[in-house]
Parts: sequence; C-alpha cells; structure tokens
Amino acid sequence: MSALILVVDDTPANIMLLEAKLTNEYYDVITAIDGFEALKKAREFSPDLILLDVMMPGMDGFETCRKMKEDASISHIPVVMVTALNSVEDRVNGLQAGADDFLTKPIDDAALMARVKSLVRIKALIDELRRRDQTGNEMGVPGQEKNSFTMDVHGSRLLLIDDDIIQSKRILDGMASRFVIEHVSKVDDALKIAQDGAFDCILVSTQLTDVDGLRLSMHMKTKEELRHVPLIIMVDEEERDIMLKGLELGVNDYVSLPVDMNELTARVQTQVRRKKYQDALKSNYQQTISMAITDGLTGLYNRHFLSTHLMNMVKQAQTTGRPMSQVILDVDHFKRVNDTYGHDVGDEVLVKLGKIIVGSIRSADLAARYGGEEFVVLMPETDIIQAADAAERIRIAVEKTPFKVSHAIGELSLTVSVGVSHLRKDGDTPHELHKRADEALYRGKQNGRNQVQLAINEYSNAG
Amino acid sequence: MSALILVVDDTPANIMLLEAKLTNEYYDVITAIDGFEALKKAREFSPDLILLDVMMPGMDGFETCRKMKEDASISHIPVVMVTALNSVEDRVNGLQAGADDFLTKPIDDAALMARVKSLVRIKALIDELRRRDQTGNEMGVPGQEKNSFTMDVHGSRLLLIDDDIIQSKRILDGMASRFVIEHVSKVDDALKIAQDGAFDCILVSTQLTDVDGLRLSMHMKTKEELRHVPLIIMVDEEERDIMLKGLELGVNDYVSLPVDMNELTARVQTQVRRKKYQDALKSNYQQTISMAITDGLTGLYNRHFLSTHLMNMVKQAQTTGRPMSQVILDVDHFKRVNDTYGHDVGDEVLVKLGKIIVGSIRSADLAARYGGEEFVVLMPETDIIQAADAAERIRIAVEKTPFKVSHAIGELSLTVSVGVSHLRKDGDTPHELHKRADEALYRGKQNGRNQVQLAINEYSNAG
Repeated sequence: MSALILVVDDTPANIMLLEAKLTNEYYDVITAIDGFEALKKAREFSPDLILLDVMMPGMDGFETCRKMKEDASISHIPVVMVTALNSVEDRVNGLQAGADDFLTKPIDDAALMARVKSLVRIKALIDELRRRDQTGNEMGVPGQEKNSFTMDVHGSRLLLIDDDIIQSKRILDGMASRFVIEHVSKVDDALKIAQDGAFDCILVSTQLTDVDGLRLSMHMKTKEELRHVPLIIMVDEEERDIMLKGLELGVNDYVSLPVDMNELTARVQTQVRRKKYQDALKSNYQQTISMAITDGLTGLYNRHFLSTHLMNMVKQAQTTGRPMSQVILDVDHFKRVNDTYGHDVGDEVLVKLGKIIVGSIRSADLAARYGGEEFVVLMPETDIIQAADAAERIRIAVEKTPFKVSHAIGELSLTVSVGVSHLRKDGDTPHELHKRADEALYRGKQNGRNQVQLAINEYSNAG
Repeated sequence: MSALILVVDDTPANIMLLEAKLTNEYYDVITAIDGFEALKKAREFSPDLILLDVMMPGMDGFETCRKMKEDASISHIPVVMVTALNSVEDRVNGLQAGADDFLTKPIDDAALMARVKSLVRIKALIDELRRRDQTGNEMGVPGQEKNSFTMDVHGSRLLLIDDDIIQSKRILDGMASRFVIEHVSKVDDALKIAQDGAFDCILVSTQLTDVDGLRLSMHMKTKEELRHVPLIIMVDEEERDIMLKGLELGVNDYVSLPVDMNELTARVQTQVRRKKYQDALKSNYQQTISMAITDGLTGLYNRHFLSTHLMNMVKQAQTTGRPMSQVILDVDHFKRVNDTYGHDVGDEVLVKLGKIIVGSIRSADLAARYGGEEFVVLMPETDIIQAADAAERIRIAVEKTPFKVSHAIGELSLTVSVGVSHLRKDGDTPHELHKRADEALYRGKQNGRNQVQLAINEYSNAG
C-alpha cells in the first residue's frame, strides 16, 4: 500500500538512512529536522505515518508528539517513535504522549516494515471514514470535529483470552480500575463470547495451551462483529516471528510477555481510542441517514420516506393480494393557531399530534408527517373498515386531548379531518391511492370538519 | 489481513494442497467439490475470495463463475481461476466469465499469496462500501441492488502511460472502440494529467526509459484523486518480481508484455467495472446526504439545514464583526390555494416561488424552505438596508409573476409578506435574529400583507 511518510530526526545521516529504506519499499518520504518543522509539515502534507526521533534539541519527540495529538486535524496520523532508549518507562511515556509504537535504534528492517505496513493499513481505513464524514460536512451536515486522541476510554470493555491463571489475574487486577474486563480461559468459548460481548479491545495470549493464539485472532477477524475490534496479542519476547506475522496479518498491536501493566494499559488505551474515534465517525453516518428519513419536528417519518415506503407497500400488497389502506389527516383551522399564537405554539401542537397518532396505531403501520399540518398513516394488511376504525380512534383521541402548550395560553382544543382510502384490486397505483384519500379528506373539510370520510366508490370498486 | 477463502476443485488432493497452503498463512478455508456446491457455499458464507478450478465435471469453472457473477448478492466476490491450461484464449474466456485472475497449476506459492492478499485487500474496501450502503437500505433509504459484474464500462476513460511508441499505438488502436483512451509518453506530465483527467483506469508500463514505472504508480496512489483509480501495470514476462511487488504494494492488476489485446481489454473491463461499482455505492451516500439537507419539493435547503447553517453564519459574523441579515417570507392566503385547487397546485406554486427567490438573491445567500409556505433567506455580509432591498426585489418579483399551474386553472396571482432582521452587535443569538424577522413578518401580515417589514428597533440597536 502506498503511503507518504514523514521522517523527523535532527541527525541528517539518520534521516538519509530511513529515507533510503522507505524509498526502497516504494514509499514517498518527506523529512523534517526538528519538532517545529515536523508539526508544520504534518499539517501541510497530512502524511500517512510519522517516524519521530525522541532525542531532539529544542522540542523533543515526546513534546512534538503531544502537540500533534492536540491538533484534531492531524491527531489521527499514527506516530512511531524512533529511539536509542528502550526502558519500559520510556515506552510508556511515549505511548502516553500518543505514539502508536516504538522502534529501537539501530533499526531492524523487518520490524520497521512490519510496523509501517500495519499502521499505513489502519490509517487507510480511518481515512476512508474521515472522507465520508467530510462529505457530510461539506454538504452541511453537522459533524463535530473529533480528536482521536482525546476520546474517552474510561469504562470501555476488554476481553482477555488467556489460560495462564497467574498472568490473567495480574492483568485483571491491573486493568480493573480503568476498564470493564472479562476473562476467558476456555478457548472453546472465546469466539462466541467475543462475538456477543461488544468489546472495545481484545487481548489474546499467543501462549495458549491448546490453540495457536494468532490463528484464533485471525479467525475472529473474519467475523463481521469483530472485524473492527482492535486486537492486541501478548507475545513472548523471544517470539519475534509471531509478532511480525501478527502485524502483517492485521493484528493491531502487541505487547511482550511478561506484561508490564503500564505499557499494556497505554497500548490498550491507544487502541480503544482509535476504535471510539472510528465509531464516532460511523455514527455520524447513521445520524445523517436518520435525518434523511425523519421529519425534524415530530420525529415521524418524512414525506420523502413515505413516498418510497408507499411504493414498496403497494407493490407488496399487489404481489400477495393482501389489503392495505391509507389514512390522511389534517388539523382543522391550524392556520389560526399559527397566526394567533405564533409558529412555536403551532410546532408544539404538531409534535403532540404526532404522538397521539403514533399512540393510536399498530407497530406495523407507518406514520409520517406529509407536510405542514398534514399527516399520513400507511396500514398494511388492513381493509377499509379496519382503517376507518383506526381513523375514527385517532379523530376521537385528538378531540378529547387538551393540547397543553408552553406559552401562557394554557390548553388548546383541536380537531382533525381524516380521509381514508384503500388499495383497489386492479391496476391501482400509489398516486391514485393517495389522491383518493386526499379527496376524502377534502370532503370532510367541506362537510364541516372533525370527521372521517371514506374515499367515494371505495366499496363498489374494492372487488 | 484475515479472510475466508472458498476453494473449489473436484480433486480432493488439490483441495487439500491449497487448503494447507492457505491455512498456513492463517486464512480460514471452506471447500466445495463442484460448481453447484460452490454456488451454494458462496451464497451461504459470502467468502472473501473464491479459488475456482476450471476443469470440473458437470458445470465447469467458466460456467460456475458466470453464474456467480449473475447473482448480485455474490457478484462482488473476487474469483481466481486455477487451471492447468495457460493459453491466452483460456485466460480471456475466464476473464470474460468474470474471473479476476488466473493461477496455473502447479501453483507457485509466491504468486498465489500475492494474488490472494491483493484481492482480499480490494474486497475489504468493497465490503466497507457495501456495509455503509446497506446501513442506508436498512433505514429505508432506497438503494438499488447493483451487480458489480454488469456495470456498463462503455466509453470509460483510460490513461496509458508508456513511451514505447509502437506498443502504445497498438494499444490505442485496440482499445479505441470500447474506451476513451488518452496517451502520455512524457512521464513528467503523467501525474498531472492523471490527476486532472478523471480516469476510470490507468495503464502503466514498467519498461519506461527514464522512470521506474512501479514507483510512478505508487506515487500516483498517494494522491487523493487517484487513490481509488484502478492501476494496471504492464510487465515484461521475465519480470516476475516486479509483478509480485506491484500486487503487494496495491497495484490492481498486471498484464504481460507483449500485450495480448483481448486479455488487456478483459482485464481493463474487470477493473473499470469494479470502479464503477464502488462509485455507485459512494454516490448512494452522496444522495443520502443530499436528501438529508434538501427540501424534497422545492429543492431548496430544508429547515434542518437552515438551522445548522444559521448557527455557523451567526458565529462567523460575530467573529469577523461583519453584518448579516435574515429574510423570512410567507405566501399570502396560501391556504386558499390549497383549499380551492388542492395540494398539487399548492405544491406547484411553492416550487415556482422557490425559483423566484433563488433567482433574486446572490450566490452567497442561502435560501431554505422553512416549512409550509414559509421561506427563509440568510444573507452574509449584508446590512439591513441591503437586505430590505433584496426582500423588496423578491416581493415585487412575486407580485409581477403570473403563477402558471398545470390544472385547467391557468394562472394565479400571488403576493408574499416579508420580514427582515439583522444581527445586532452585542449578545445576539440565531434564535433572536429569527424571532425578530418572524415578528416583522407577522406585522406585515397584520398590516395588510404584500409588504416588507423590518424588525422593530433594528436601527437603534444596530450599533
């Protein structure tokens, strides 16, 4: 996978070395000689990965990393720290500053490339989610700028798959204050528990007695529910090949055994944050769609959705030969409410009316605000007699309900006029069905309002 | 990357061999012993990749592949044919049946894994797009079931990057009937032309005189505009390493030099189809968002979008200290139109009115249908005098325009009442701005309609 990589180091020879290695693997490389230039170039070029030297004069790697993570426009870019230090404390400091991983100088080529590939792949997925979020933003759908680094991870759900009792206990004890952690020692149950548990991160030991932990991990990743759950393998320090293979296959991170609890906590935190960030981007999409089909005021379906659904429902009724009916209702003298009390009160009335309608129909029925003060209910599996009954129920409910409004006005009394039509046997169309209900409604209005009218000739043509 | 792979072969030994190789690389494997079982398992398990033997009794691999590609629920799953045959004709037959590539028996492990990884990666991207499309479908946003195999590729745009004049001419001649093909022989221009050209597929020779074709390909893939454009490299038959490296890096396909035109056509077709399929999934998303912010009847922005935008515009005006104004207009006696002529005519009037409004304002202004027969225009960088002028222009335009409607009615004369407010200097809010315009509108109504009213005290508080 192609990528643009920013290499940051104050020693030109180090930059040249890394640049040569990365270019040899067909990556595009840009460089910076200190933290300030690094921040500038990260913002300007939005690279896919940053390799960041720790020991630099002026602003060191930790501080540079922290500043990158504070900036929501670049906080999603993975950072790998390159350092001559290799104490657990340094690693934890770096992870807490927001780094994704460490590479120790002198750099091992296999480890470098495994990490680069793995992070570039993760970055590509995030980019895809960000792009679609941005599409929404550009078209004006509100999306809050999210910072991947500041997502709250407290109380996130972890699954630990490990049959080493002592080690498991240590991990459970060490993580319990920040995370809700569940433990599976019987590997046979692991997959099902993982699939059912809505976890934010899964830890798998590669030292399981009966099973290859890496294979179990990969098997989990083929499942739809687990595809986007970050997976961390716990690997014996000697098992470098398993670690490299894991990264190649799509494991998100690893930690060496015996586990240092601070390091594990920091790594889990990084993974959970990224998942939360991705979840947030995805839920924006769900909201966008929900907005597209919902009437903003009443929460009922909107006219657009109604039209689509009406077509489908008519098609289905015609295929199965089952009845269906449509009800249209309109608030009597609604204009007076708006003109007398203002739109705010009018809106309150509509919201309340929406609730009355929804409370009077079955769950299979579909209620929509058709526009203004007009509502439509589609009723599958319903003949005109049943539909007329339902319409009358709604009419009475409205008549009997005092509409409490927030202004000093107190309560309003309102009525509705209702038209009902039902699908005819031969060659009927959604448009005709709607039109007949609308005409019936109009007759109700002409005839004195506060009444239910059935579409003319509905019986004689009902077949 | 983890994946579920379906291996289809009528010879158990072949299945076992492939299964062992794939399992060794941590893939999940399911198997089928003939075309019928293959179709059944493909539908049931929706694997990420299918390795399909060509020579099978009953239904051979070509036919099985064709049947898979006819089924929209599985047509997006990549198929690699495994065959003892290796004539160009067989390859073309397979490609035309919908296969993505060929592996020749005895299977070369490196070639197998390179192809598997490459296709699994492509499949993961498609899955992501399909999932988000499905989210829309589940929430009722209409999306047509698309078959990736039957996307129309005629007239698609190709870019050929090759400085071999004779070879280029052959390719141009051979492809011109099906595709619009552009040729670049000067490599320096290639990137810019590729970025500007909105191509559906790019062919790059790895035999360029001055440049490493694979590096150029990877460099193109780092560009936003080219990330999702399929890239086919043309590789000398001897350069197996370049081909494998290309697949590893994310090149979509390759073809051996000297190019067989039928094979190249078939491979280009496969890539372009996949791109068109991805484009279709993406444009569904754009439509969904567009629906979410647009008033279905008039095509103006809807109330929800207006609210969001109003907040942003107020914030910006307050930050910059620049003026902004809001106009609200409402059709006079609109209820009469609906009651007398029906909603269809009412709707026609609203559509026409929307056009008059949009035709009377600047492109920086934002017009929205606020609800019913009420419209709002937000005007950035506009003080109340300018806004009042614009409001008066709209009022006059409406007064002078005969509203032609499709019924036998002919033409209607209509007027609008308009309220105008503008953002005050200190502590003003979107809500207050809107309310003042609304109150001014109400005064206009009380005062005899067909007039523009400015919000009271607007001057004295304007600061």
